[in-house]
Amino acid sequence: MGVTADEMEWERAWCAFFIVGVETKTWIWIVAVDIVPQGQNLILNMNDKGFNVVAFNRTTSKVDHFLENEAKGTNVQGAHSIEELVAKLKRPRKIILLVKAGQAVDDFIKLLEPYLEQGDIIIDGGNSHYPDSIRRAKELEAKGLLFVGSGVSGGEEGARHGPSLMPGGSPAAWPAIKDIFQKTAAQVNGEPCCDWVGETGSGHYVKMVHNGIEYGDMQLIAEAYDILKRGLELPDAEIADIFLKWNKGVLDSFLIEITANILKFNDDDGEPVVNKILDKAGQKGTGKWTAIAALDAGTPVTLIGEAVFARCLSAIKDERVRASKVIAGPQKEPFRGDKQLFIDDLEQALYASKIISYTQGFMLMRETAKEVGWHLNYAGIAAMWRGGCIIKSVFLGDITAAYKKNPELESLLFDDFFNKAVHKAQPGWRRIVAQAVLWGIPTPAFSTALAFFDGYRSEIVPANLLQAQRDYFGAHTFRVLPGKENDKFKSGEDIHVNWTGRGGNVSASNYNS
Amino acid sequence: MGVTADEMEWERAWCAFFIVGVETKTWIWIVAVDIVPQGQNLILNMNDKGFNVVAFNRTTSKVDHFLENEAKGTNVQGAHSIEELVAKLKRPRKIILLVKAGQAVDDFIKLLEPYLEQGDIIIDGGNSHYPDSIRRAKELEAKGLLFVGSGVSGGEEGARHGPSLMPGGSPAAWPAIKDIFQKTAAQVNGEPCCDWVGETGSGHYVKMVHNGIEYGDMQLIAEAYDILKRGLELPDAEIADIFLKWNKGVLDSFLIEITANILKFNDDDGEPVVNKILDKAGQKGTGKWTAIAALDAGTPVTLIGEAVFARCLSAIKDERVRASKVIAGPQKEPFRGDKQLFIDDLEQALYASKIISYTQGFMLMRETAKEVGWHLNYAGIAAMWRGGCIIKSVFLGDITAAYKKNPELESLLFDDFFNKAVHKAQPGWRRIVAQAVLWGIPTPAFSTALAFFDGYRSEIVPANLLQAQRDYFGAHTFRVLPGKENDKFKSGEDIHVNWTGRGGNVSASNYNS
Repeated sequence: MGVTADEMEWERAWCAFFIVGVETKTWIWIVAVDIVPQGQNLILNMNDKGFNVVAFNRTTSKVDHFLENEAKGTNVQGAHSIEELVAKLKRPRKIILLVKAGQAVDDFIKLLEPYLEQGDIIIDGGNSHYPDSIRRAKELEAKGLLFVGSGVSGGEEGARHGPSLMPGGSPAAWPAIKDIFQKTAAQVNGEPCCDWVGETGSGHYVKMVHNGIEYGDMQLIAEAYDILKRGLELPDAEIADIFLKWNKGVLDSFLIEITANILKFNDDDGEPVVNKILDKAGQKGTGKWTAIAALDAGTPVTLIGEAVFARCLSAIKDERVRASKVIAGPQKEPFRGDKQLFIDDLEQALYASKIISYTQGFMLMRETAKEVGWHLNYAGIAAMWRGGCIIKSVFLGDITAAYKKNPELESLLFDDFFNKAVHKAQPGWRRIVAQAVLWGIPTPAFSTALAFFDGYRSEIVPANLLQAQRDYFGAHTFRVLPGKENDKFKSGEDIHVNWTGRGGNVSASNYNS
Repeated sequence: MGVTADEMEWERAWCAFFIVGVETKTWIWIVAVDIVPQGQNLILNMNDKGFNVVAFNRTTSKVDHFLENEAKGTNVQGAHSIEELVAKLKRPRKIILLVKAGQAVDDFIKLLEPYLEQGDIIIDGGNSHYPDSIRRAKELEAKGLLFVGSGVSGGEEGARHGPSLMPGGSPAAWPAIKDIFQKTAAQVNGEPCCDWVGETGSGHYVKMVHNGIEYGDMQLIAEAYDILKRGLELPDAEIADIFLKWNKGVLDSFLIEITANILKFNDDDGEPVVNKILDKAGQKGTGKWTAIAALDAGTPVTLIGEAVFARCLSAIKDERVRASKVIAGPQKEPFRGDKQLFIDDLEQALYASKIISYTQGFMLMRETAKEVGWHLNYAGIAAMWRGGCIIKSVFLGDITAAYKKNPELESLLFDDFFNKAVHKAQPGWRRIVAQAVLWGIPTPAFSTALAFFDGYRSEIVPANLLQAQRDYFGAHTFRVLPGKENDKFKSGEDIHVNWTGRGGNVSASNYNS
């Protein structure tokens, strides 16, 4: 199975080598470089911002090659051993590892540790899973070292011209790395797409949620494209124009922009390349981690879950082909309504679903922060994602504004701007989902977003029946609905009903809500 | 958070004690007992079937109490120490532990081990997570002991009159325990709801999937109830009659039956008790494990995922109440169509969604079996679930028949019976989902089932666009769609396109599909 965008790049870096930086004018810096452009580009980017970077890799010839080619004429330096490198560093040393997530990070930390001193900073810029970063922060802090786990997003372009950086870990490290992080990061309206996220593993946690949201955004665009293609039966060039137009409105974002570019990109025979691409998407990455984290936290992040599963379903192409031959859908009628109205509805459906996806993502971060004890900077997180990364968008500026206005905002849907937006989008959103359902075009992400929206705004959901069933077959007890208390059904008590008249003396003792 | 039905019972068993059985006419048997009816009832059930059971618990007074009360006049015996108990057992000894999943199982195995000999059998009848059972099977087999991890389902009634038993583990153990397992289990049409599942942790794996499916079945019923209540605005007694009628057709099942009973169960003031129950469902249990296993296996088990998330959403009641005051849904019009036709559509929607849920569950088992190397008995699994457990139904007889007819069946949707059933159900299913969407009634499970169905029967899904995006921003490469090959786009090759005209010399090396 494939992995997500930037993840794959860093993983490849590890295949070959990692690199570290040395003394600059004021900074000591270590960074990975590789034939992979991200590593190279991040170093060149830092060099541009006035930081002298030293690169180290176990395969020293690769360091030399980089210095003689891409880094020629810059202030970038190389090192041929960890000793040489660390010896050159001013204290507190700042070392960033860009190696494959997992054992490799621990291995490199072990290699470095003997050469480091109290207060030195190890920064993991790879796609580590956040529980590992929580552990590493604790282990290194116990030894007097500082740890930062930083999400790094943006692909090769982002690394060169400004990535989105999401650093979290030992708070004492932030003042020492703030300047280089914020100068290296993308800038939007003069503000850096980098701020301090929070404690221990929160930087990697936030990067993971970012990647999950990226899965969601991509799936939503794919569903809109599918409806335009299979539903309205529009040619790709016309669909490209629709995305171009959307890119001037509330959906203005990198992913909408490249979708338009992709749909206009033809092969030599004039056929869009996109129509020649096998419809199997890789899916094992941080999107999956986000969905699992949501399940573990008990937070209904349904849209990312569906986006991950949609990739799973795409992957079983051969089975789908066989199924397509024995399962018929509904008779598809050509669309006879007003196309432009339909397309406007679709824009609203995409927008509203996107609001739900980010609402769920921020719910997840809030819930996890509560459980783990992090103090997350929600406005800062949205601001970090505004530029430099795959999900960059105008939309994230609106989220930043919402959390700046109210740092304790319970849900994006409670913010005036987004509340009005979903109310406005709602009728078109419903029409699109209903039409797709009747056409037989799958819209797992649009549909789950709407189901979440309708459940979230329901004072009463039918979970009362679930609780009755659980009490009926397993004596699990229930609580009384406020306003319905009486002598038998008392507030705060675990209630069991003898539904069948048999064996009613059983009740489960540990109801937790 | 709460836990699933039978899970909670076994967990409570551990709070107090565990018990073991001794010599019977032909069997040596060990079983747990507790104040919890499941343990007691399983022992009494085994006693009825002609097996003398010996119960052991660390708190020996509880053993005595059981023998002097519930087990009075039976052949059930007690033991006051592990030594006493094990000494009485004929070889190979058969010991079933019913203790809380997790460390307790390992602790008890360690307690027992010194007294056991080659070929003795330890059976874990709790709700252990299958990776633990895989590990325990390997560890015990390496020591010459045999291990069985058995799913046990059915609540207190099931335990007393015949549970669904799902044993898997060391194949050599099966002949030694087959008779008592199959006689103790529920019987449907003269066949036991117990058969050998497969190797190592497969018994607990199948029990986990069973529980996940239970979440799905319950959520589907809750959505149908919600549509009848909020959509058609029917009184509970009338809804009960609809479920009673459905229980005579394709939906005939325990959960439909108890739903009707619940809806007819009134408090003293004449109001249905279900309307006095707080709409917050517990959710941390094996349903969550199933969803995580699906994500890990890369199998789109979307319906169970949505069912788990629906419980999460129910749990944030206070937030929903606040949201209900600031987010308005669509103006709800009273239903003006033909009610009976609508109700028939709803029956078909529920039936088709259920077929999808089981299709996904069996896909997951098939995929995991392939990965882990198990040889699963699919017809046997469906047969085990036909009776004795929460999801028991006529429907499972049809699944049994499908896998008996073709043990290599790729998907339930390829079986004639189910293929015809979904085709018949499809129009009504679509009408129901579209209507619910327009009404603003959340149907996450109905909707995801339909989205899966439409994706599964799609030869082409829009994942080609995802792959183009991933290649555009991350140079992840793609494969060519069969039939579209040319000189640049060759079959079997990882293809990268220079979408932007900049930096096109990068490609990700590890495309895996």
